[in-house]
Amino acid sequence: MELFQIAHIESKYKEKFGIPRQSGIVKHSTAKIVFEDLYRRPEALSGLEDFSHIWILWGFHKNDRKKREGWTPTVRPPKLGGKLRKGVFATRSPNRPNPIGLSCVEILGINLNAQGGPFIYVSGADMLDGTPIYDIKPFIPYADNHPDAKDGFSRNFSDMRMNVVVQCRDFYSLEENDRKAIIELLEQDPRSAYEKKESFEYGVFYGDYNIKFHVEGDVVYIDEVEKNSFTPSK
Amino acid sequence: MELFQIAHIESKYKEKFGIPRQSGIVKHSTAKIVFEDLYRRPEALSGLEDFSHIWILWGFHKNDRKKREGWTPTVRPPKLGGKLRKGVFATRSPNRPNPIGLSCVEILGINLNAQGGPFIYVSGADMLDGTPIYDIKPFIPYADNHPDAKDGFSRNFSDMRMNVVVQCRDFYSLEENDRKAIIELLEQDPRSAYEKKESFEYGVFYGDYNIKFHVEGDVVYIDEVEKNSFTPSK
Repeated sequence: MELFQIAHIESKYKEKFGIPRQSGIVKHSTAKIVFEDLYRRPEALSGLEDFSHIWILWGFHKNDRKKREGWTPTVRPPKLGGKLRKGVFATRSPNRPNPIGLSCVEILGINLNAQGGPFIYVSGADMLDGTPIYDIKPFIPYADNHPDAKDGFSRNFSDMRMNVVVQCRDFYSLEENDRKAIIELLEQDPRSAYEKKESFEYGVFYGDYNIKFHVEGDVVYIDEVEKNSFTPSK
Repeated sequence: MELFQIAHIESKYKEKFGIPRQSGIVKHSTAKIVFEDLYRRPEALSGLEDFSHIWILWGFHKNDRKKREGWTPTVRPPKLGGKLRKGVFATRSPNRPNPIGLSCVEILGINLNAQGGPFIYVSGADMLDGTPIYDIKPFIPYADNHPDAKDGFSRNFSDMRMNVVVQCRDFYSLEENDRKAIIELLEQDPRSAYEKKESFEYGVFYGDYNIKFHVEGDVVYIDEVEKNSFTPSK
């Protein structure tokens, strides 16, 4: 089945490093859904204002697509320290037969008549800037909520948060919302499960900023904020 | 983006008429996920036994696919009586730019080593027998549950159930689970929003049975159960 791109997301995540591993975790990160020419029709969103959340079906477009014959049945989820293998269909890993992602985000606002619009403003997206979108569906509480659902091996996220300590004054010149988003982002420890270096200076891009940090134990120290420093790597 | 079919569903819904309009409504309806040859690998499901629910991404394969240029920005949801138009992205209508469906179903069991397996047995699927499946993802409670989400125009489903009265003895020769599923299916009034005839004799196929019924007011009367009568229409 061929899917056509209907929209893309404009987010502050400029590279894969640092992107939260599920939607809704970094609530203060906002993003904008921009429709492609053919789908730029305000009436296609009529009624969406009565819902608070949407599902986005999107593409893992920066993942090297494995050949159909080369898919791997197991992956190593970062939640398990990157050491244990699980079946790909028991994970949300991007390395799956069809590179399609599923995220639930909250609607912050809809601007039907903006130039270049309609736009949907959302929070909690876990998608790289420019990610292609293939479908948008309303979150329907009576069908989509499963309060008794079992969690599998992905433990309660709140148990795993790191502490974040800000040790540079520049951080406080950022907008409040960006500050909150950056802290939420660092609390979830963006470092790879395979390589967690103590005292190493990491940098994570968020919007126009490169946030430099290092980790000691379960504390993330924000050391420096550099502006306008993102150059996409090839 | 091209998606490859990884599996298909074997369900008791033999035609579109009667299929519940969201997943999870007809809980007693069970179905089986069967993998295509290339994806028939037990290890791809390792760890799934720790989850209770999965998302299925599937194709509306029996919907006449509109040409890319011919998509319609609005549809008339059956919940609104089929009269009011809503934007397609504010609905789960199958008539959307990309014919991809999203359903949450409960796992009843997983048989890794059956001949022709692995199989996943599920309840609550809202998919036609033979529907192609493109992805299976675990339902992750901390990311997927949104207890405060707003419901839009799709009112609380339980408010809308019809009463079902059985008036034929044959019905009680069916298996208990099928009886429950058929009643859940009729409670949600399978008739088209556009044409609800009083006293008209309808038939809905479920598994090997054709359930004949008519409706008066908000009561559905089961009149007759015919066995082995399904012939797929062209």
